[in-house]
Amino acid sequence: MPQRALRDDDVLIDIAFAGICHSDIHQVREEWGSAIFPMVPGHEIAGTVREVGPAVTAVNVGDRVGVGCMVDSCGECEFCKDGFEQHCQRGAVMTYNGTGYDGEPTRGGYARSVVVGERFVCPIPEGISLDEAAPLLCAGITTYSPLRRWGVKAGDKVGVIGMGGLGHMGVKLAVAMGAEVTVMSRSLSKREDSLAMGATDHISTADEQALRTHRSSFDFILNTVSADLDLETYLKLLKPRGVLVNVGLPTQRYAIRPGMLVGHSKVVAGSNIGGIPETKEMLAFCAEHGIGATIETISADEVTEAYGKVVNGDVRYRYVIDVSTITAD
Amino acid sequence: MPQRALRDDDVLIDIAFAGICHSDIHQVREEWGSAIFPMVPGHEIAGTVREVGPAVTAVNVGDRVGVGCMVDSCGECEFCKDGFEQHCQRGAVMTYNGTGYDGEPTRGGYARSVVVGERFVCPIPEGISLDEAAPLLCAGITTYSPLRRWGVKAGDKVGVIGMGGLGHMGVKLAVAMGAEVTVMSRSLSKREDSLAMGATDHISTADEQALRTHRSSFDFILNTVSADLDLETYLKLLKPRGVLVNVGLPTQRYAIRPGMLVGHSKVVAGSNIGGIPETKEMLAFCAEHGIGATIETISADEVTEAYGKVVNGDVRYRYVIDVSTITAD
Repeated sequence: MPQRALRDDDVLIDIAFAGICHSDIHQVREEWGSAIFPMVPGHEIAGTVREVGPAVTAVNVGDRVGVGCMVDSCGECEFCKDGFEQHCQRGAVMTYNGTGYDGEPTRGGYARSVVVGERFVCPIPEGISLDEAAPLLCAGITTYSPLRRWGVKAGDKVGVIGMGGLGHMGVKLAVAMGAEVTVMSRSLSKREDSLAMGATDHISTADEQALRTHRSSFDFILNTVSADLDLETYLKLLKPRGVLVNVGLPTQRYAIRPGMLVGHSKVVAGSNIGGIPETKEMLAFCAEHGIGATIETISADEVTEAYGKVVNGDVRYRYVIDVSTITAD
Repeated sequence: MPQRALRDDDVLIDIAFAGICHSDIHQVREEWGSAIFPMVPGHEIAGTVREVGPAVTAVNVGDRVGVGCMVDSCGECEFCKDGFEQHCQRGAVMTYNGTGYDGEPTRGGYARSVVVGERFVCPIPEGISLDEAAPLLCAGITTYSPLRRWGVKAGDKVGVIGMGGLGHMGVKLAVAMGAEVTVMSRSLSKREDSLAMGATDHISTADEQALRTHRSSFDFILNTVSADLDLETYLKLLKPRGVLVNVGLPTQRYAIRPGMLVGHSKVVAGSNIGGIPETKEMLAFCAEHGIGATIETISADEVTEAYGKVVNGDVRYRYVIDVSTITAD
């Protein structure tokens, strides 16, 4: 499909790799409501700048860059000014299955190239390969942002619910921040991986005894699961003043006894990706700590099969499409 | 009833005034489970030090002091050390209807005197009269603590749900912190009072149009109501990243659509009174800003009638018992 002609502040990126996010599948399958077709999914994009518009100053031709979930925002509201473009009052423009402020549909990263305004192009520092960098643009920032907002620091005890694309990034990032990390997953099948990524424990959420040993012990719990969980089970595991942050979107309402929050001044929050300044900070943090996503690289003709495996939780831990295998652009 | 003999670190306080908190009624009526009788309720205590144990250094005979919801804690756990005695791992000892670490039942402020360990005795600065100070020890700290934890500051837009004993303190404190305060109450009957206390608006929670005008506008909402409210109604009124804190204990579970929190990174929290360092800070803040509770002073023989009025929300805004009217000790 044709790209738009470069505007003054546009960047044309030769894409190298695009991560497969579960939300791609939801949108392709219209599980989140009606979608815009033809659709080019993909909001975990890593590549190299091929061309820049005349007003672009932030990146140069040849730079390694990434693009995440957003490609535009008003730039003028208090949230944009504070670096929370995902909360833009006009409404941020999503990277694909969205509509730009020009009225044109947006198209994502499962492609050989993409054109994005420079404000939404994030440099990928040396030290992270482009394939391992791609998933950082969604899975990385989605887990980094709440860890930072809530001040996770050395010595904190952190729980991560779910050991998938988001969860494994939460583990790596929290470990790099100095936290003592416990993974809570449906099974123990990924236990060795959790420990290899620096977690000190990995328990099954079906093991009530194991859950009990962690009662009132976590400063912070990151819930990366989009299935309906009983949040009270996990609120019990928080220390007083502890914080449980959800980044997934289950279908049922949370049901929480008031005393579970009030008694020990606990917190339940949500978190939606992260802003652009924070995304740049996250990429620098990952480079500094040698963190990339743990990936399985696939070719374009394996995407459909990969979708099935993502739905079944059968990927360790993120599929990344080598877009050089895409034959038609 | 007899007081315990003064221990080395004990303070004997001649009580002047004791506030009536709705929780007194819940406990007297065993609405929160079985209680310890005979009961002397009252955890909003203001008076003067009559006598101190030999090791007491924090207060002197003749000092104006207050006692709130707690009279003991372990003093050694991380929460006690951090000044969050209400979250003590051993369990804080409640001022009445509790059991001290010595196994003896505790007795509260509807009395001529009380003996309390010095750690839980808070100086009442000059500039706040003892009658208006008494309710600060529960209603004041319960609203001050979340406003401080969540960093409410000049220019923030704050909503206060409920205009009762807690709510009116929330209004006064948030106004003194420089916030622009909107009261949300069942009716408009207290509107003039809200505005007189510094609120810029007072709307009825039954007025959907009025609620709509405040959509996505509050940085912080303090819910002081113990009735079951639809939290989603109020979450919609928060800005992105806004915080809704509950201090009441309704009977039903909160029901919250995940997207209401995740979409704009919103927060629902609980808050339980406040610690002793924070209580002292709150009293100093109130003195600095000329804040006391708005009270109706009653005699001991009016308590039963007052309870009925508290239950009906028919008090502006806190009953305070003049304990000099208590004839038997």
